[in-house]
Amino acid sequence: MGSLNDEGVFDSLFAGRCLQKPLDPEEFRRHAHKVVDFIADYYKNIAEFPVRSQVEPGYLRRRLPDSAPHHPEPVDEILRDVADDILPGITHWMSPNYYAYFPSSGSTAAFLGEMLSTGFNVVGFNWISSPAATELESIVMDWLAKLLQLPPSFLFSGGGGGVLQGTTCEAILCTLTAARKRALDRHGHDQISRLVVYGSDQTHCAVQKASQIAGIHPANFRAIKTHHANAFALTGDSLRRAVEADVAAGLLPLFVCATIGTTSSTAVDRLQEIVGVAAEHGMWVHVDAAYAGSVCICPEFRHFINGVEGADSFSFNAHKWFFNNLDCCCLWVKEPAALAGALSTNPEYLKNRATESKLVVDYKDWQIALSRRFRSLKLWMVLRSYGADNLRQFLRGHVRMAKVFEGLLRLDRRFEVVVPRYFATVCFRLLPPRPRGVRKRHFDEEENEGILMGTNRMNQTFLEAMNAEGKLCMTHAIVGGVYVIRFAAGGTMTEERHVRAAWVVIKEHAERVLKEVNGAVNEVPRPAWVDGAAAVVAS
Amino acid sequence: MGSLNDEGVFDSLFAGRCLQKPLDPEEFRRHAHKVVDFIADYYKNIAEFPVRSQVEPGYLRRRLPDSAPHHPEPVDEILRDVADDILPGITHWMSPNYYAYFPSSGSTAAFLGEMLSTGFNVVGFNWISSPAATELESIVMDWLAKLLQLPPSFLFSGGGGGVLQGTTCEAILCTLTAARKRALDRHGHDQISRLVVYGSDQTHCAVQKASQIAGIHPANFRAIKTHHANAFALTGDSLRRAVEADVAAGLLPLFVCATIGTTSSTAVDRLQEIVGVAAEHGMWVHVDAAYAGSVCICPEFRHFINGVEGADSFSFNAHKWFFNNLDCCCLWVKEPAALAGALSTNPEYLKNRATESKLVVDYKDWQIALSRRFRSLKLWMVLRSYGADNLRQFLRGHVRMAKVFEGLLRLDRRFEVVVPRYFATVCFRLLPPRPRGVRKRHFDEEENEGILMGTNRMNQTFLEAMNAEGKLCMTHAIVGGVYVIRFAAGGTMTEERHVRAAWVVIKEHAERVLKEVNGAVNEVPRPAWVDGAAAVVAS
Repeated sequence: MGSLNDEGVFDSLFAGRCLQKPLDPEEFRRHAHKVVDFIADYYKNIAEFPVRSQVEPGYLRRRLPDSAPHHPEPVDEILRDVADDILPGITHWMSPNYYAYFPSSGSTAAFLGEMLSTGFNVVGFNWISSPAATELESIVMDWLAKLLQLPPSFLFSGGGGGVLQGTTCEAILCTLTAARKRALDRHGHDQISRLVVYGSDQTHCAVQKASQIAGIHPANFRAIKTHHANAFALTGDSLRRAVEADVAAGLLPLFVCATIGTTSSTAVDRLQEIVGVAAEHGMWVHVDAAYAGSVCICPEFRHFINGVEGADSFSFNAHKWFFNNLDCCCLWVKEPAALAGALSTNPEYLKNRATESKLVVDYKDWQIALSRRFRSLKLWMVLRSYGADNLRQFLRGHVRMAKVFEGLLRLDRRFEVVVPRYFATVCFRLLPPRPRGVRKRHFDEEENEGILMGTNRMNQTFLEAMNAEGKLCMTHAIVGGVYVIRFAAGGTMTEERHVRAAWVVIKEHAERVLKEVNGAVNEVPRPAWVDGAAAVVAS
Repeated sequence: MGSLNDEGVFDSLFAGRCLQKPLDPEEFRRHAHKVVDFIADYYKNIAEFPVRSQVEPGYLRRRLPDSAPHHPEPVDEILRDVADDILPGITHWMSPNYYAYFPSSGSTAAFLGEMLSTGFNVVGFNWISSPAATELESIVMDWLAKLLQLPPSFLFSGGGGGVLQGTTCEAILCTLTAARKRALDRHGHDQISRLVVYGSDQTHCAVQKASQIAGIHPANFRAIKTHHANAFALTGDSLRRAVEADVAAGLLPLFVCATIGTTSSTAVDRLQEIVGVAAEHGMWVHVDAAYAGSVCICPEFRHFINGVEGADSFSFNAHKWFFNNLDCCCLWVKEPAALAGALSTNPEYLKNRATESKLVVDYKDWQIALSRRFRSLKLWMVLRSYGADNLRQFLRGHVRMAKVFEGLLRLDRRFEVVVPRYFATVCFRLLPPRPRGVRKRHFDEEENEGILMGTNRMNQTFLEAMNAEGKLCMTHAIVGGVYVIRFAAGGTMTEERHVRAAWVVIKEHAERVLKEVNGAVNEVPRPAWVDGAAAVVAS
């Protein structure tokens, strides 16, 4: 990746220097400048790396020593090892050619905020431990709530409030624990095994995991089946059927998670219907908008979270598609006392007058851990450095790129867009070749399981070949039995030219894979995955 | 805090510039250099700030606007606001005069590692998502395990393994969930309300909170009483009595947390006795060495964790006293499968060949959240930049400072060291004045509750006055009914001269407070807190 520092200024003066003190301001300054240049150079050259790491399991243990060094080593040398040993093992989430999972939305502003947070290094468990950490968080969460047009009941001024969690998994576990406490206070703790948690078969695994951790009976997590006809949304009707069956069986409906932009296919659950059903049964509704929440700051997308006024809590990941480096999950609740009731502890060593005055928020009672970083600095830095208007434009830019990509796919009869594209993620697949004149096959026409499996295997091979080449990176999902390739635009360095270049790569690989399938009809031996796909050609 | 940049190089060229793109390498470089200088200057001038923030609740909302800006604002302007609005609300955990709670152990090396981690911004939930993130973590955890002389069964080579969590709270919740799963698989999920978790009245609130979250019956968390005679350690005998009573009552002992260096007084539980009792009842033993674990890399301190070979899991906070910025908790388990059994999920969108090969670790199954930062970079950077020998010397330096402080206290008859000092934290209090010739009063001589309360109130006022002045910061605890002031050395910028300067401040305040108590005997009205203390003088 070239020299660590283009100017060579620091190299000549301080090369080979080891750190002498745990923290000396001038040592800090010199070495931190070096690392800034290292990272800036990394970004400049990032497109040169294979996007997905190409190493084999165990590669690093073969390169590094068995034990920690006795003596200090120069920072320059460590940075060289980062370049030589670590970078090959990195899957470059920051690459403009990265379209896998969901983006890891790092930005300059967030990096600056994170530097300040790391530099101040405060442990903001309660107000007194660093008032600015608590107060800035409350303020910024109100700012964001207003941008999202959340109902006033989610703002501090309306009796609710927002908190920064690390991840959606934590946000869901906290809200589930609050819901469980509320229910067991009424029914008694020994009824815990009767509580039921609902999501769909598209709901993020975070909900199932939170249920496991919170002691919900393993048999009482409902992944309600969704269908292509509803674009894989959880509907009010299907939720009602599940809830009523459980009630009839003597169980206690506790919690439902509605997702805005599922991980597999960015499906949008029918929030307005769901809050209606939940209200009938006194269930806690959490809205998981981890991916799509951020784009709802654009008025034209806001309707996707209509119904949120009937929910108890709402979260989205600012580190997913809101220009914040990992980690930064924004959670709002209508009833902070419910969170605190389930999560507060009050040891003597943390008692202080500010807490006793009840004029302050102690965020330790809103989360799993006691200690917490000063995360709001980066969110504040992002909101101020870019401003709401530009943030909306950046997000719209990503949606536009996804639309461009979708358009290219739709013009090519070899491809299918499998589910509707709502945001900046396109779920597509390669279709098996078919004789000229035969109409393009569509998802719901797939009756033959053998054909479906063959097409799935073909797409798996297709995707794996692209990722192994390293010019771009995408990942897959299976929705309604269909293997889809997910193209998630939204990388902070991705521009339309990258999307168009990705399309060229995709087409090349498609030609290669289709040629193999065509050839396979008349050849033995052939790769196992072509069996099903070849059947289509033969049929 | 003076200019943001001593050289003024960037200021003149780029002042007033707004960020144009979410992430442009050269914009990134310019602005990140500015922030490095901002933080280096902060460290240079840190001793000028009042250590504990002196703001009033709500101070920041009065200074900041009600909503996010529409348009971008220059980074320079935001940094000026950080200096003007944020810094006054910061309690300066990085100050050399900070002795509160436990240190927040930031270092140059850790900052550099954190920068790299933030810069790469990978989301390392599984191996394939960035192999280096997983592999470096496994390697560094083995390095650390060797420095701590943990039994081989905690290393990957011995069938165990280590993982980086954010905090001890998370580490404990994960191990508790694993223990609960193991127990309920045997007894059936409907027995969850019979499970019991044990700690002492000195155990960190993390254990109680983890129990709450994991659905342990609120009545089934045992905070076993400790005593001054045992230096507030949890003993095997007291644990056995509690466990046997629960078994007799038909309950199921599940989990015990043994602490090495409690938060209140750095007490050390009797680990060897505890693992013996736990083994008889098939309980999971977690060793919480959050504070004192790190110093056990020094051979002369290693005996404090003797008995760990009988435990199931062990954790310490590298962000507490091991030169890592928040957050970085090191957890080792003997049976990773128990963690994964309780915490794994396997959604289609995360399936990949590396996972299926079973040749790799997927750390998502070792923690609460799915997403995880590349934390091992900072730990690796710390271990390599300083080397094991210097790290031991740094830690010994902190212990030496605490000894110096303890010596100063012991030479002054107005003070008492309330509990034994094992590490770098000294728990002391100011004694009420007494007639000449009367022997210094000691802890266990305090029979009179009125006198004790008065002394407690006096120490509370004494501490509050020092923190309000801002030349240093300490916090308190109550052990065995006695209010103690905790002096936790270990700040990375603290040197012996700071400790000696702190002693001067403490003595000045002691004189003032004792004068008030003396005066109060003959004066009315007097502050409420002197009532008890004055009674000593009068008696």
